[in-house]
Amino acid sequence: MIDVGIIGGAGYTAGELIRLLLNHPKTNLNFIYSTSNAGNKIYKVHQDLLGSTDLEFSSSINPKVDVLFLCLGHGNSKAFLETHTFSDHTKIIDLSNDFRLEKDRDFEGKHFVYGLPELQKDAIINANYIANPGCFATAIQLAILPLAAHQLLKEDIHVNAVTGSTGAGTSLSDTTHFSWRDNNFSHYKAFTHQHLGEINESIHLLQKEVSSEVHLVTNRGNFSRGIFATAYTDFDGSLEDAKKLYKAYYKDAAFTYVSDEDIHLKQVVNTNKCILHLYKHNNKLLITSIIDNLLKGASGQAIQNMNLIFGFEETEGLQLKANFF
Amino acid sequence: MIDVGIIGGAGYTAGELIRLLLNHPKTNLNFIYSTSNAGNKIYKVHQDLLGSTDLEFSSSINPKVDVLFLCLGHGNSKAFLETHTFSDHTKIIDLSNDFRLEKDRDFEGKHFVYGLPELQKDAIINANYIANPGCFATAIQLAILPLAAHQLLKEDIHVNAVTGSTGAGTSLSDTTHFSWRDNNFSHYKAFTHQHLGEINESIHLLQKEVSSEVHLVTNRGNFSRGIFATAYTDFDGSLEDAKKLYKAYYKDAAFTYVSDEDIHLKQVVNTNKCILHLYKHNNKLLITSIIDNLLKGASGQAIQNMNLIFGFEETEGLQLKANFF
Amino acid sequence: MIDVGIIGGAGYTAGELIRLLLNHPKTNLNFIYSTSNAGNKIYKVHQDLLGSTDLEFSSSINPKVDVLFLCLGHGNSKAFLETHTFSDHTKIIDLSNDFRLEKDRDFEGKHFVYGLPELQKDAIINANYIANPGCFATAIQLAILPLAAHQLLKEDIHVNAVTGSTGAGTSLSDTTHFSWRDNNFSHYKAFTHQHLGEINESIHLLQKEVSSEVHLVTNRGNFSRGIFATAYTDFDGSLEDAKKLYKAYYKDAAFTYVSDEDIHLKQVVNTNKCILHLYKHNNKLLITSIIDNLLKGASGQAIQNMNLIFGFEETEGLQLKANFF
Amino acid sequence: MIDVGIIGGAGYTAGELIRLLLNHPKTNLNFIYSTSNAGNKIYKVHQDLLGSTDLEFSSSINPKVDVLFLCLGHGNSKAFLETHTFSDHTKIIDLSNDFRLEKDRDFEGKHFVYGLPELQKDAIINANYIANPGCFATAIQLAILPLAAHQLLKEDIHVNAVTGSTGAGTSLSDTTHFSWRDNNFSHYKAFTHQHLGEINESIHLLQKEVSSEVHLVTNRGNFSRGIFATAYTDFDGSLEDAKKLYKAYYKDAAFTYVSDEDIHLKQVVNTNKCILHLYKHNNKLLITSIIDNLLKGASGQAIQNMNLIFGFEETEGLQLKANFF
Repeated sequence: MIDVGIIGGAGYTAGELIRLLLNHPKTNLNFIYSTSNAGNKIYKVHQDLLGSTDLEFSSSINPKVDVLFLCLGHGNSKAFLETHTFSDHTKIIDLSNDFRLEKDRDFEGKHFVYGLPELQKDAIINANYIANPGCFATAIQLAILPLAAHQLLKEDIHVNAVTGSTGAGTSLSDTTHFSWRDNNFSHYKAFTHQHLGEINESIHLLQKEVSSEVHLVTNRGNFSRGIFATAYTDFDGSLEDAKKLYKAYYKDAAFTYVSDEDIHLKQVVNTNKCILHLYKHNNKLLITSIIDNLLKGASGQAIQNMNLIFGFEETEGLQLKANFF
Repeated sequence: MIDVGIIGGAGYTAGELIRLLLNHPKTNLNFIYSTSNAGNKIYKVHQDLLGSTDLEFSSSINPKVDVLFLCLGHGNSKAFLETHTFSDHTKIIDLSNDFRLEKDRDFEGKHFVYGLPELQKDAIINANYIANPGCFATAIQLAILPLAAHQLLKEDIHVNAVTGSTGAGTSLSDTTHFSWRDNNFSHYKAFTHQHLGEINESIHLLQKEVSSEVHLVTNRGNFSRGIFATAYTDFDGSLEDAKKLYKAYYKDAAFTYVSDEDIHLKQVVNTNKCILHLYKHNNKLLITSIIDNLLKGASGQAIQNMNLIFGFEETEGLQLKANFF
Repeated sequence: MIDVGIIGGAGYTAGELIRLLLNHPKTNLNFIYSTSNAGNKIYKVHQDLLGSTDLEFSSSINPKVDVLFLCLGHGNSKAFLETHTFSDHTKIIDLSNDFRLEKDRDFEGKHFVYGLPELQKDAIINANYIANPGCFATAIQLAILPLAAHQLLKEDIHVNAVTGSTGAGTSLSDTTHFSWRDNNFSHYKAFTHQHLGEINESIHLLQKEVSSEVHLVTNRGNFSRGIFATAYTDFDGSLEDAKKLYKAYYKDAAFTYVSDEDIHLKQVVNTNKCILHLYKHNNKLLITSIIDNLLKGASGQAIQNMNLIFGFEETEGLQLKANFF
Repeated sequence: MIDVGIIGGAGYTAGELIRLLLNHPKTNLNFIYSTSNAGNKIYKVHQDLLGSTDLEFSSSINPKVDVLFLCLGHGNSKAFLETHTFSDHTKIIDLSNDFRLEKDRDFEGKHFVYGLPELQKDAIINANYIANPGCFATAIQLAILPLAAHQLLKEDIHVNAVTGSTGAGTSLSDTTHFSWRDNNFSHYKAFTHQHLGEINESIHLLQKEVSSEVHLVTNRGNFSRGIFATAYTDFDGSLEDAKKLYKAYYKDAAFTYVSDEDIHLKQVVNTNKCILHLYKHNNKLLITSIIDNLLKGASGQAIQNMNLIFGFEETEGLQLKANFF
């Protein structure tokens, strides 16, 4: 049993971490730190947990926990680590984008490893500090990386991705108002989404001499959970070649699968899976990628990284019943 | 052509009024007053109106308009009228709950008439000041009033009503956050909703010696527009008796209909209609009532009242294409 | 490890059973019988299971399994058991309404026990054959039974309940067409829903001399999963009295909780929980009850019954991560 | 007043036509032909029309109407016209894809004109027979045509488009089942959607020597009405150049507008508008296009074509109140 602490316990990703950790056989939830909710029962905020736990939010931090999850707003993880010290053996998994890019990975003596198991499982196993990937970044990388790994990216990659409303966090905004978003659709940050940085760095890691550009249009869907991404680019081989290549690349992946059938978003909602589908038309290979933005795109992947670091089964605590409907 | 002014132009009910008035053949939109949006194009706030109008929000008020609609938050209409004076010929239609109850209908020399045409069309025709009914109050009264008009209310009335998210207005709140409300359901203000006051006063107006109590559970539905209400109480006659009675009561109503078939909410969305359905089981008469909360439950009924006051066709500007899907 | 068989594997309740059983530590899925899908991979029908199992639908039945779940359409379970024989030690849990009512519980030498653990856990523990309760019936009984157990039902009980679309099964119909149901609301089978039979029998079991009638309006909500039910009736005591009584009644319940805070449907979606909330206004006690119709209202409760029969922990395989969003 | 007939009156597009024509000041609904519903009231099928019309479906056809709308399934319009004769003065507007492509436009002595007013208003004004454009085809052409008109298409065009469920018609299918589609997302017919034919023919009409290919991924959204399409391609000029060019191209369009602000689907739902938005990033011009698939994408555009042919105001009967929420 390892002791776990969570910083910033009131948000969506912290809620998901708590849900997962309460059922994880190898972890003990040592503290859930939230200044605004200190002293309140966890289930007052994460209300589905009534009956599942009597834990309370804590106003104090135990610096000796075995693993610490940072669930702070983007930009706040650095500030937090500048003012708080933890024991040498404490592993830290950060869910913000503070340490994801190469230029940010070394911070105050800590080296953060980019935590995408399908990219670099060995590095994660040996890491002390993890920068957990972004949600769009996870879905899109898993669609593209097998091509990069075989130096097969030649032309630009055209990506369209839709996210659920939980991707925007708990704070209220015009575009998360139900009256606005219900039965609506829109895009935002076209071609400039911040996750492009992570995506491009991983591509270059695998295919050094790449000149393909990723063109990304990100959309707001009228659903709560999930990311549905399509990516297409030129591919010389046959559909069968592509499938073989993808299935080989993911043969040891714990949660990433290639489907021979058409796929739809709800196959992965409330699971840690990524399901991919391939389709070939003329010289274009179309890859479809679906994940739950809060699980494989955030808290589920964070637990997966924790499992790898501590030598647990990679799927421990993550074999979840899908919602499906 | 009459000149129309709107106070508080940025909210949902004002938006609906503008949509209706732009297509109304007898009105001229003289000004739409909004302090926060003064100088902005209307379509910057009500974005569907791009291409439909180049009007701007105004920071000044024309006190000589023929009719003024007050679209202010509850409690603010009184404050506004205390500090603003209008010409003697200016009719005022207030969409808040400030003047709906008997005790509130006389204010600073103005007498407000409760603007439910199915209850008292003559009084409205002769009114200068209208208190426009609440949305739940409209749906529920139209379900009950025919019984009261025939002194047939004997036992308690059990009402369950569901509203769309637009009923909660434009302001952001936990229960209008998309991530929360999507695929969710909840109730609020059980037995104590403020619209019970209007409902009971209208019942008593028609059936003086009534002792039936209205038990009302109001719910938040995961849809944007509409109210779906069921009401049941004891009724001695047959289903055919009830239908005859309801159809007779509404034979001159411009927008209220009795359906012989089962009904569903989307039959009235984006229309000014109220559709009723009757069902009898043992001694219970179940009445189902559906309206669009922003139209028959607010702005549509306000225009209907305006039409009556100015001697226009009651349906002028209100024969709307339903959304239906 | 016990061997499990499922009859009728392609529907929603079978899908949920499979999802639960794949993660259940004490069961082995011996066969999933489906004539129409025999030979197909399970994940071709229940597509979220890609990567979770390579099992196939079977065209043959093993009559020696330890437990058999019948997931057939209402009326078909009797027909099936008339033409198929199982070993003496095979426990049978039927999810249809074929054996729920007293008059149906003895069939071909088998005695079916009504499987609501909160009503009669001991009888279930000793049962060989279980009639698994209906979804509405579960939500509504859990709202009412504590009163009946204390002989406190005096006046009629007014119940309004909303179900998600999965309650209507996989078959296509006008009222499950997305274009119709999206953002829509309607009721059906008012006062005559078939689950009233079960509800009344359980009430009478606990409070023999009861004359209270249950008036039930059942509604179609525009969401996929869940039942939200409100029930109110006269109650002489205080709110605190009521809470004490309900908490005492459910103190040993494995999944039923009383919340001191307002509740909303998504607290229980994708869990086996029932959460109740109490509210008192004048002499009326309002009880709100929420369940997932496919879990506590069907397959989850079926597994709970299996756990009880086989002496497993009652919560084994049922501590599920809520979807919540 | 012109006499109008509708063939195939029970589907979505016929329903929308009826809704529009009932409020159109220049038309008289002469007959609505439906074999399956003959003798039934219109409002038994299009249930929002209760109170709006007492018309019935007809089993007979008046061959002398001024204009005939064919609302038959794709492939059935040809069969219908082979077996039915109409007067020489009867204009025919076909909503299927039977006559949209050049190779199909001459049929049994009739010449069909492709009815996209923004492409060729003059040809429509002089037409007797109209092939009404497809819904995706309308949204996408309006995004691209201004570039083609200026011979500015040089590189491939990457299009992603999402449709509401009404695009799939009234028939029941797995992907229009509410339990499946609610909160779901998927694509279909990637790169091969049948509307690509129309789109390419219009592009070639304007820019003869074009080699740009349109790559189209079409998606099923979890909403009922609307199409949201994004298209991007290389563009040498500035964003201002592009806006100028688009605004000039659409300056006489009755329903197509260029928004300077970001747009979202619900701006056009239940209207006949197309709203476009332009954005430039590096050398890519991103055009966003939104329409209501049943109005500008079908029945609204059909009425617009009728207005043009008969010399009515182009917007007659089409100045609709948006649903917006």
